[in-house]
Amino acid sequence: MTNDSQATTASGPPVTFINVFEIDESEIDGFITGWEKRVQLMAGKPGFIDSRLHRARSADSRFQLVNVSHWESEEAYQAATADPAFSSRTQAARDDAKGTVAPNPALYDVAVAVTAP
Amino acid sequence: MTNDSQATTASGPPVTFINVFEIDESEIDGFITGWEKRVQLMAGKPGFIDSRLHRARSADSRFQLVNVSHWESEEAYQAATADPAFSSRTQAARDDAKGTVAPNPALYDVAVAVTAP
Repeated sequence: MTNDSQATTASGPPVTFINVFEIDESEIDGFITGWEKRVQLMAGKPGFIDSRLHRARSADSRFQLVNVSHWESEEAYQAATADPAFSSRTQAARDDAKGTVAPNPALYDVAVAVTAP
Repeated sequence: MTNDSQATTASGPPVTFINVFEIDESEIDGFITGWEKRVQLMAGKPGFIDSRLHRARSADSRFQLVNVSHWESEEAYQAATADPAFSSRTQAARDDAKGTVAPNPALYDVAVAVTAP
């Protein structure tokens, strides 16, 4: 599942999408259920590699949910998220959560990677 | 590099350590250099699987750096970071950065994982 094992598309190097969520604890279970459905829309798109939604072990952690997804290129990511079916579901999720979910999405490169010797 | 391919230790399931950094743009390059040295202290510890430091593609992103590391168990992570050599280097990095780096470290479980079909 490393980017290294994936062929890159002609349009660019692999990219990591990370979304850091601030969310009320009472909203977490419902949000995960909704996210599980939305991510299926992404999983079939060209250039999608994988996605993990992480949940904090401690309720005291500032960011209770963190999504880390890998794409073959930024262009593939942009094309997938431009799909109106995706944006309408994302908007619906925001409406459901009544403002208690603050996402912080961004695209990243791997600056340093280290594996156990 | 998935946790699934690693044998878990007797002490617990695999865990993901994520550290979300708020950092002044001018500090980023120096911080990455220091981090690259510090992570070597971790890489040889029992239970360490891998670690990636991600850098935002856009200077406008709220969180310019995000570290995602995998450990065989929370106990292995706790034991590694209890090493005084590690804490002293981490403290030195904080002092060098003069308060312009705000880390948000936490431990996570994978709530949902999806791979391209």
